[in-house]
Amino acid sequence: MPAEFDLIQRYFTRVTPDAVLGVGDDAALVRVNDRMELAISTDMLVSGTHFFAGADPFLLGHKALAVNLSDMAAMGAQPRWAMLALSLPEVNEVWLEQFSAGFFALAEAHRVSLIGGDTTRGPLNICVTIMGEVPQGKALQRAHAKVGDDIWVSGTLGDAALAVAHLQGRTQLSEAEFLACAKSLHHPMPRVALGLALRDIAHSAIDISDGLLADLGHILEHSKVGAEISLAALPLSSVMQSRFKMMRANTFARQCILSGGDDYELCFTAPQKCRAEVEKLSIPLNISLTHIGQITAGQGCIVRAENGQIVPTEKLGYVHF
Amino acid sequence: MPAEFDLIQRYFTRVTPDAVLGVGDDAALVRVNDRMELAISTDMLVSGTHFFAGADPFLLGHKALAVNLSDMAAMGAQPRWAMLALSLPEVNEVWLEQFSAGFFALAEAHRVSLIGGDTTRGPLNICVTIMGEVPQGKALQRAHAKVGDDIWVSGTLGDAALAVAHLQGRTQLSEAEFLACAKSLHHPMPRVALGLALRDIAHSAIDISDGLLADLGHILEHSKVGAEISLAALPLSSVMQSRFKMMRANTFARQCILSGGDDYELCFTAPQKCRAEVEKLSIPLNISLTHIGQITAGQGCIVRAENGQIVPTEKLGYVHF
Repeated sequence: MPAEFDLIQRYFTRVTPDAVLGVGDDAALVRVNDRMELAISTDMLVSGTHFFAGADPFLLGHKALAVNLSDMAAMGAQPRWAMLALSLPEVNEVWLEQFSAGFFALAEAHRVSLIGGDTTRGPLNICVTIMGEVPQGKALQRAHAKVGDDIWVSGTLGDAALAVAHLQGRTQLSEAEFLACAKSLHHPMPRVALGLALRDIAHSAIDISDGLLADLGHILEHSKVGAEISLAALPLSSVMQSRFKMMRANTFARQCILSGGDDYELCFTAPQKCRAEVEKLSIPLNISLTHIGQITAGQGCIVRAENGQIVPTEKLGYVHF
Repeated sequence: MPAEFDLIQRYFTRVTPDAVLGVGDDAALVRVNDRMELAISTDMLVSGTHFFAGADPFLLGHKALAVNLSDMAAMGAQPRWAMLALSLPEVNEVWLEQFSAGFFALAEAHRVSLIGGDTTRGPLNICVTIMGEVPQGKALQRAHAKVGDDIWVSGTLGDAALAVAHLQGRTQLSEAEFLACAKSLHHPMPRVALGLALRDIAHSAIDISDGLLADLGHILEHSKVGAEISLAALPLSSVMQSRFKMMRANTFARQCILSGGDDYELCFTAPQKCRAEVEKLSIPLNISLTHIGQITAGQGCIVRAENGQIVPTEKLGYVHF
C-alpha cells in the first residue's frame, strides 16, 4: 500500500505559484499583502453527519472546499490558500482520484492553492482550512448590522433541506425535482464574487449553513439588534413554489425555508440608501438578490405572514449536537 | 444538549489580543507582520490510529497542539495562531473541560491564540491548524541541507516507541521506566525555542514524528544528498541505555531508536563551522543537542556501527497506510 507521502504526491500536489512553499515540508509558507488582513476558517465534514456513506467522491471534494469558500464569501475575503486534512478508512485510489478532481476543479475556478495538509487512517473525515485576504478593516462581520439596515439573501432558500428530506423518506420528490434541489446540497456554489462586491456596501454578512433563522440570529446577537422579515418575500425555487402551493401555511415547507441548512447562500445587511446599488449587482454576478426585511431596534427575529400575523418559529435551525 | 455554539463559547473561547477577530464569526482575522512569511501546518489525530481510545483528555489536548507546534519548530517559525476542528461521538463535559485545559495550558505557554475552529458529531477526531511567523527567507526547509553539514538531533530517541511497545505488550517496562518513556509519547515538549535559535545557523530541519531514518530521509530526498550517521553517537535516555545493555546488537532497540515515531525532537543540519555555536545553545535552552553524523554527496542514509560495519536498516519508520 502506498505510504502517506505517495498519496500526497500523487493526488494532492499541484504547482502553487501563489505560495513561497507548498506541499512537502513541515509547513507551507505564504506572504500576505501588507495592506491586507488574513481571514482563516476551518470546516470539518464527517461521514454519517454531513454526508451519507457512499457519497460521490467528486461532489464531496467539491463540497469540502465549497463550504469553506462560503465562509470567505461571508467575510468579503478573497480566498487564496487551503490546507486539507483527510482521514480515510482505506486507500481507495478511485475514490482519491475523484475526490481530488472535485476539490481541484473548484479550487482552480477560484484560484485557490492547496498548500499543505495531512492524510491518515481512520473513519472518513475531511477537514479543510481556508485562508483569504481582505483589505484591513473591510471584512464583513456579524457584529456590524445597524438598525434600519435592509436584510438581503442571495439565491433561493430551503432546496438543500428539501433534498435531504427526500433522501430520508420524509417527503417525496420527482426525479427532476430532486435533481434541481440536490444541486444546492451536493454542488453548492459559494458566493465568493458577491462577498467581494459587498465589501464597500454591506454592514454585515453570514453564510446560510445552519438555516436562515439560525444564521440571521447570529448577526442579530452579535450586533445586538432585532429583525423583522416577511415570509412572502423569501426567495423560493420553482420546485419549492410548485410543490407547496399552500406552502406558507405548511409547517414542513416553512421548516425547509426558515431552518433548512446547507444552502450556502449569503444573508447580509446593508443601508437602505444602497438598495439600488445592491440590486445592480444581480446581473453581472448572475445571482438573484432579494430584500427580505429590516434590522430593528428589537430583539430576535419576527417573521410576518402576508396577513400581518406573526409566524411561530420554534424550530430554530440545524443543531449540531 | 448544548448546541455547537455553546460548546465553543464554554470551552474554546479565550481572549485573543493577537488577532483582529477571534472565535465567533465566519472566519478569524489576523495581521501578519509585513517582513514575515506565514508558516501554516495541519495535523489530524484520530482515535485508534494516533492514540488509544480512552486516552487522557488533558494529555490529548496537549498533544494535539504539541505536534503542530513541533512543525513550527522545524520551520524556525514563531507560532502565533491556531484553529481547532473537533469531531466528538458525544458531548462529554468532563472530557471537554480537560481537553481544553490541556490545549490551552500549552497554547498559553507558547502565546498561541486559538482563533477559530469547528465542532461536530462523529468518531473522535482532532484536527489542529497552526500558523506562525518567520522572517522572509529564513524558514528552515528540508531542501537546503548541504554536503559536509553536521547532522544533529535534540533530546533522546526512541522513548515514545518503547512506551508504545510496552502498551502493546511487545516489551515490558517497570512502572518507573514506563513513566519516563511515556513522557515523550503523551506529553511531548515541542522544540519551538530551538527552532527559533536555529534560524541563522541551520541549513535544514525536520521534526522527528515518523522516526529518525524516515524523517532524515525526507531531508536527504528534498536536498538530493546522502548521510552517514553513527549508531554509537545516537542520544539515548537512561531507560533505553539501562534496559538494552546489548542494545546496539538488539533489533528491537534499533527499531525504536532509528524508526520509532512520536519523539517530536528536531533533526537538523548545520555547517561544521557552526559546531560550537550549536553546542552553546544547549545550556540556555536546557536541551541536549547531539552531533550524530554528516551529510554526504551520496544517496540515502548509511548507519555505521562502532566496529565500522554498516547496520542493516530495512525498517524505515512509521508508515501511515
